[in-house]
Amino acid sequence: MTTIDAQADVVTLINVFTVDADKQQELIDLLDKATNEVMRTLPGFVSANIHRGVDGTHVANYAQWASEADFQAMLANPVAREHLAAALEIATATPLLYRVASVHHA
Amino acid sequence: MTTIDAQADVVTLINVFTVDADKQQELIDLLDKATNEVMRTLPGFVSANIHRGVDGTHVANYAQWASEADFQAMLANPVAREHLAAALEIATATPLLYRVASVHHA
Repeated sequence: MTTIDAQADVVTLINVFTVDADKQQELIDLLDKATNEVMRTLPGFVSANIHRGVDGTHVANYAQWASEADFQAMLANPVAREHLAAALEIATATPLLYRVASVHHA
Repeated sequence: MTTIDAQADVVTLINVFTVDADKQQELIDLLDKATNEVMRTLPGFVSANIHRGVDGTHVANYAQWASEADFQAMLANPVAREHLAAALEIATATPLLYRVASVHHA
């Protein structure tokens, strides 16, 4: 279980992928595998939360890293880059970094 | 504090806004106000989590609703629509609905 907390000192990547409907599951599997085999082992990794688009043609990764430097180091890691390149063979990605501004509940 | 859990029976809206840097804080304030004054009072609202883009020109709302029907009812609500229209006067939005597929931790 992942928590979103405005006080937590993490940087959040929200990466929205656009993919053909017949490749959505393949992309989810690929992101699960990349996370388990590579991302989880890297310094500063906190969580990855893979989301299946209800429309069938999107996948989102809501990922938390301890710092922006850790995230940038991941992007420069050759094994991580290989996994990211595999995702980009079947999808387009719009990765953006955020910090939590506010959290509201019912 | 919000939780992301693949077993939770919620639908997730990830709405990525693009905004001029000098309007980013105004958009965050507007989304905070709309959430507190309107969204929180609507049936099926679970959480809204407003994220400030590190690049200065994006804002993301990671919001959870009890069901897709509750989310659609919000979109049809006249007061909610008024707040959404105000956001779209200063930003563009890419709202997409998801279900959590998997959660990974370090």
